[in-house]
Amino acid sequence: MPLKIALAQLNFSVADISANSATIIAAATQARQQLADVVVFPELCVTGYPPEDLLLRDDFIQQAEQAISTIAAQVHGIDVVIGYPQRINGQLYNAAAVLRDGHIIAEYHKQALPNYSVFDEQRYFKAGQQNCLFRVKHVQLALTICEDIWQPGIIANNRDAGAHIILSLNASPFHAGKMQQREDIICAQVKQAGIPLVYVNQVGGQDELIFDGASFVANCHGDIVFRAEEFAEQLRVVEFVDAAPQPNDIAPLYQPVVSEYKALVLGIQDYVRKNGFRGALLGLSGGIDSALVLALAVDALGAEQVEAVLMPSRYTHDMSNEDAKLEAEALGIKHHIISIEPAVNAFNDMLAPLFADTAKDTTEENIQARCRGVLLMAISNKQGKLLLTTGNKSEMSVGYATLYGDMAGGFAPLKDVSKLRVYQLAAYRNTLSAVIPERVITRPPSAELAPDQKDEDSLPAYAVLDPILALYIEQDKSAADIIALGYPVAAVQRAISLVDRNEYKRRQSPPGIRITHRAFGRDRRYPISSAYRGTATLVEE
Amino acid sequence: MPLKIALAQLNFSVADISANSATIIAAATQARQQLADVVVFPELCVTGYPPEDLLLRDDFIQQAEQAISTIAAQVHGIDVVIGYPQRINGQLYNAAAVLRDGHIIAEYHKQALPNYSVFDEQRYFKAGQQNCLFRVKHVQLALTICEDIWQPGIIANNRDAGAHIILSLNASPFHAGKMQQREDIICAQVKQAGIPLVYVNQVGGQDELIFDGASFVANCHGDIVFRAEEFAEQLRVVEFVDAAPQPNDIAPLYQPVVSEYKALVLGIQDYVRKNGFRGALLGLSGGIDSALVLALAVDALGAEQVEAVLMPSRYTHDMSNEDAKLEAEALGIKHHIISIEPAVNAFNDMLAPLFADTAKDTTEENIQARCRGVLLMAISNKQGKLLLTTGNKSEMSVGYATLYGDMAGGFAPLKDVSKLRVYQLAAYRNTLSAVIPERVITRPPSAELAPDQKDEDSLPAYAVLDPILALYIEQDKSAADIIALGYPVAAVQRAISLVDRNEYKRRQSPPGIRITHRAFGRDRRYPISSAYRGTATLVEE
Repeated sequence: MPLKIALAQLNFSVADISANSATIIAAATQARQQLADVVVFPELCVTGYPPEDLLLRDDFIQQAEQAISTIAAQVHGIDVVIGYPQRINGQLYNAAAVLRDGHIIAEYHKQALPNYSVFDEQRYFKAGQQNCLFRVKHVQLALTICEDIWQPGIIANNRDAGAHIILSLNASPFHAGKMQQREDIICAQVKQAGIPLVYVNQVGGQDELIFDGASFVANCHGDIVFRAEEFAEQLRVVEFVDAAPQPNDIAPLYQPVVSEYKALVLGIQDYVRKNGFRGALLGLSGGIDSALVLALAVDALGAEQVEAVLMPSRYTHDMSNEDAKLEAEALGIKHHIISIEPAVNAFNDMLAPLFADTAKDTTEENIQARCRGVLLMAISNKQGKLLLTTGNKSEMSVGYATLYGDMAGGFAPLKDVSKLRVYQLAAYRNTLSAVIPERVITRPPSAELAPDQKDEDSLPAYAVLDPILALYIEQDKSAADIIALGYPVAAVQRAISLVDRNEYKRRQSPPGIRITHRAFGRDRRYPISSAYRGTATLVEE
Repeated sequence: MPLKIALAQLNFSVADISANSATIIAAATQARQQLADVVVFPELCVTGYPPEDLLLRDDFIQQAEQAISTIAAQVHGIDVVIGYPQRINGQLYNAAAVLRDGHIIAEYHKQALPNYSVFDEQRYFKAGQQNCLFRVKHVQLALTICEDIWQPGIIANNRDAGAHIILSLNASPFHAGKMQQREDIICAQVKQAGIPLVYVNQVGGQDELIFDGASFVANCHGDIVFRAEEFAEQLRVVEFVDAAPQPNDIAPLYQPVVSEYKALVLGIQDYVRKNGFRGALLGLSGGIDSALVLALAVDALGAEQVEAVLMPSRYTHDMSNEDAKLEAEALGIKHHIISIEPAVNAFNDMLAPLFADTAKDTTEENIQARCRGVLLMAISNKQGKLLLTTGNKSEMSVGYATLYGDMAGGFAPLKDVSKLRVYQLAAYRNTLSAVIPERVITRPPSAELAPDQKDEDSLPAYAVLDPILALYIEQDKSAADIIALGYPVAAVQRAISLVDRNEYKRRQSPPGIRITHRAFGRDRRYPISSAYRGTATLVEE
């Protein structure tokens, strides 16, 4: 008799234990109707992932424990494999339980606790020490949780203990290329151990993190025989005959630019939904960044939920205003036009006595950006709409942005998207329907805070800057390393010294969506007070 | 022949490896002149503590390793015990080394790696497995690092291995009551093991953290026989006869309010100095918070380094302006007066068409606060002075503050100081010299953003609010727990629901000085997107 295992790739909300429980009960009931013997949910699905310091609260842990009883009582006729935080003698474990007809028949504690990158699991959990097998229809299933199967040993240990199939509960966040990396590493382990594996990942956005799903089943040769669609909720059943998974649908992995676009859309959607905003709002400048954020927001929320504000100044080109209007019209969204001149003039007059003997500098540029910030925040406050900040990772890296000005906002979709990637994503979006005017893509970028200003007056060209930033920030290369790769000394020095001294701005920036393997935020924890200068390796030579 | 051990309680700067090395060489040389046989420095003194993700950079680790050779080569005639990150076969250790006449004669790897509260050491380091003893004048000295001696076992293990004296290198951050807790816990271990201990802690401010020093020597009965002054650099020599420490100066521990005041002063001083600001700037409202921050800033930096701006509106009472002027005059600092009315009027006019059919709400109040933010940031940008934010922990907890308005600034000295504690600190400061007018202390607090506004119109009285916040935030108590302690249901519900939904504001707040055992920032990592409601425990009853 074949064994049917359901993979529940669903979108859970952090701390919404009652809604998550209802989702689990509904999906388990549906899986049973599809004659599944077992349904596997993601890691910590009861609490959502990552619950962070909520895990330190007694009342939170108690609520999660109560939910297990509720779920166990309400689902019968199918084995339900769920993840939750379990406390035993004052120690907390990242646990998985198998519920069968009202009872917990097996319990597992995650053995490998990641404590790098965005993960802080050793802050909360004690590591488990034992494997856990349970039997369904004469097949031995082994429980593992996420990181467990990234390390050599645990899959083979389970095989040696008699397991026929490995079940893996995951909350594995997306970054570009992650799906391939995940399958390569895990399938190599599967192949070596010669035992099939069922991989279930959650889907959805949670603050900085996107979970992409891409759940899969690998056979004992490490070949993928089933893959769920990425970035979508899926409840799918895979059949096993003599513990061998039968061929099934294999959803293709998206091209990188497509997967990043989908990650950004999902990130905006879930941030707005999970935080209860009445839509989103942004400043539309006629530049490429705000054009892309607008398209993402409309794709995430629908045109009627998105509003744009054009805020021209004396330095705004007609072309910028025209293009901004074209973007709003192409996407069918409401837009307002408010000149910032009256406020800028007021501030300049108010500060004139104090600044009488000083030269103009970035102070005056920042005043303009901050007047836009005040306007956008006022509209956001009044309407209950989330203000989306439009800055990209290149700007955030070098501090080419005004704190409380264009950095104002609740969420920064492009915070981990380099400028060059912004262009690629915009070009991709235009292949679906033409919403960003060609001129916006081809004209040189400008903050338009001074006459005829161009980004490249202050920064190396993005074609040079972006790879330097990636090497320095995402790969921890030294200035000397980067120059040895052929990048110009002056550009490397300029870029790195700007990154080093702008940590204070990043610390106050809104959260944004992580799409690389090293984003700002929880992923990169740098001191502000720091004498570290990445350029020191050059000076010494 | 007596053994002389020097305790080097010094102020190191994160990542300033060359300056830290110079400090170590100078102090070791001075200790040798005082005939010390051994000089003990704090944990990770070569890099400063905590270096955070700089530890993931190859070039940074290499610089630290090179510094060891430099220091070893330059100090002779004394054993130098220093802390640094040591990499062996790709694994990083939180290490201590003993340098003697150009050679490393002993190396130790920290065994207990804290990964809770503000600590992330398991993110960076592998735990050591072995004790490390070295001999000076027939006395066996054992090396330990910070957390090691907070756990039972390691002191006694070292005694069993033949140690006569325990040396402990520390970077132990301050919070109220920490010094006493530290001595109580460690001296209990010392007493039980019956072996004397030399405790050396660093001193100084590093972003959110203050290191208070308070280095000490305990004899084998667990009695303190020497204590260094808190919050000050000290190089002191303690003599041991037959491995027993001889009586020495015991600096008294400061009263809590005094130690907190000194912590805040040191925090401002080091943030300004280590980040290279040309002094500090703040908005002076006539309220208690800005009055206290002004006094702290002047005590930290001197009057000539501090500047204040009074920014009245139509809602500002004459009394507030008068008191603010009195404060500036009492401390002898420069102040400016700029009415915010022209900018507020400009924004209200610009937004009038859009807001035509809406009622006044907090939007209009936020505009006022944000106009002040724009003015202060403009002056900060122009002058290179650090803008100090004056909000306190009570406000930060419940979100009674305007993002990009009164929350604007580079550093928030009172971020971890409750409103009631603000009053106590102000009263303490006035005992040194009268700088805060009595009326500022006695009148009811108001944001002055609407006619006759009082904080208590929107919030429970601080006498009720502050203890509720401490129980909820610092002690993770549930709403039900807090009500069971006798606090009014309505106040508990209001306070907790405000804390829960204002995480987004705190995430964009400037760093501030940690003075409790649970501050916002690295110390409290809550999700923004979260359905957790601390009041849920009430609804269910």
